[in-house]
Amino acid sequence: MFDRVVIAGVGLIGGSLGMDLRERRLARRVVGLVRREVTIREALAVGAVDEATLDPEALPRLSEGDLVVLATPVLTMPPLVRRLAPALASGALVTDAASTKAYLVRALPPLLPPGVEFIGGHPMAGSERGGVRHARRGLFHGARWVLTPDAQTSPEALAQLEALARAVEAEPLRLDPELHDAVVARISHLPHVVAAALATAAGPSAAGPDGDLPLDLLRRLAASGFRSTTRVADGPAPVWRDICLSNREALLASLDRFEAALAWLREAITTGDGEALSRGLEAAREARAQLVSDPGRQL
Amino acid sequence: MFDRVVIAGVGLIGGSLGMDLRERRLARRVVGLVRREVTIREALAVGAVDEATLDPEALPRLSEGDLVVLATPVLTMPPLVRRLAPALASGALVTDAASTKAYLVRALPPLLPPGVEFIGGHPMAGSERGGVRHARRGLFHGARWVLTPDAQTSPEALAQLEALARAVEAEPLRLDPELHDAVVARISHLPHVVAAALATAAGPSAAGPDGDLPLDLLRRLAASGFRSTTRVADGPAPVWRDICLSNREALLASLDRFEAALAWLREAITTGDGEALSRGLEAAREARAQLVSDPGRQL
Repeated sequence: MFDRVVIAGVGLIGGSLGMDLRERRLARRVVGLVRREVTIREALAVGAVDEATLDPEALPRLSEGDLVVLATPVLTMPPLVRRLAPALASGALVTDAASTKAYLVRALPPLLPPGVEFIGGHPMAGSERGGVRHARRGLFHGARWVLTPDAQTSPEALAQLEALARAVEAEPLRLDPELHDAVVARISHLPHVVAAALATAAGPSAAGPDGDLPLDLLRRLAASGFRSTTRVADGPAPVWRDICLSNREALLASLDRFEAALAWLREAITTGDGEALSRGLEAAREARAQLVSDPGRQL
Repeated sequence: MFDRVVIAGVGLIGGSLGMDLRERRLARRVVGLVRREVTIREALAVGAVDEATLDPEALPRLSEGDLVVLATPVLTMPPLVRRLAPALASGALVTDAASTKAYLVRALPPLLPPGVEFIGGHPMAGSERGGVRHARRGLFHGARWVLTPDAQTSPEALAQLEALARAVEAEPLRLDPELHDAVVARISHLPHVVAAALATAAGPSAAGPDGDLPLDLLRRLAASGFRSTTRVADGPAPVWRDICLSNREALLASLDRFEAALAWLREAITTGDGEALSRGLEAAREARAQLVSDPGRQL
């Protein structure tokens, strides 16, 4: 399917993609570009790459039939592409795996040499456990893989990436980058920020009216509800910092919606209006049921 | 262990307790008191009770060796106990399974006949799926079972309830009711209200700056992060309405902590302060790691 695939950033996503590319023979050679020496050893150990380097200048010259997949925190991608540009020749294809798209669709194309095409991508797989040590074959099975082509996108390049998504058992989905960002702000980025605030608020601290609650007691009584409500907050901070900053407007709009919904519930609790509170909690169940198939299943 | 056990409210908790009581021969007879005819059939079908009735006056007269377990929404318990009182004679023991304790420790004892003892209880097991149809044997395995004895509590009655908790493989834990309520407000009640607001905000609506996002797209892109962050919001509204209202002060104090943490993160996002945002997200991970053993495990 591809000759050489360079994966820039061999973590959970990049590493899992490398495993599938090699396992399924989707590329002749998979080359990792990483920041730390230890990642080279880990990436080779789990079979995520055929070779890996810290040095963009050590990369093969990439052209027709070659693919670059950017899988680093989103704000690091423009400087990364500047360093990669010398290795890119006409015909090479560039995509990414970041959770925000409009920012990259604006920022990256101007940094590429003539004849090198960029199509934004977002394979919606993963977990809160980052790093190549958590990479695994089949991570993308059943996941949506958003692609954000534009007027300049060549049908051939788009078809190649859709074929790649299908080859790893994901479902390709063409979306406008702004629409993608607005939707994931609400169902992914907002939940992450809220989960982080929840973990912070629940945790021990000197501040707050009940900041003196004993940690051992909080820990003993924290059950599955707390665990699952805050699970995503265990995700890597650099990745999520960049997501929040690169999708700021959509995220702030989602935060407005959340704060309005929370204020409504808080008002019902403060005034002791059980009837309103019931309606609010029922509305929440119905909203979730519209978004989640099999709402009862635990995850 | 007990002669007769009356379970008032045969849902997930009451039904699962009834199953364990009968399966493990911890009571000579388990009698369900329920509100709806259909629950009698369901409770008998899953083996949660030996018999069940809609009518408190049909209950046997309870005294020494008998136990009443209240397992209905917390605000329904005082009126329920008024209706049960005629069936209670000196020596009978009353406990409950509600998620808030201070309110009940104040409200219930004055409603009981002389010689009838109440000890608050909170078996911290369950899931968002309410109803006796989700009841199961072993639900309490490994769970904390909080008991809130006071100065009037007899050691014998407390020992009986601790033995009951251990007999269903739960871990009894004696706590001051106010302390219990403050802790669960932070690690259970706050997460529930926040998850409800999150589901409401993420869901489709005409309101809001991006209220026009297509539902099918929100649904297609909502992944495991959204599912787990909002899972508890699928819990029964009447149960959670009563929890919020009966633990209002502690819940509002926890909401203050949450809103402060969220405002801090929002400020970093608004100003684009990546360094502060990283610190905030890292602090959230550390707070969660202090409360959750094996933070990586999904639930």
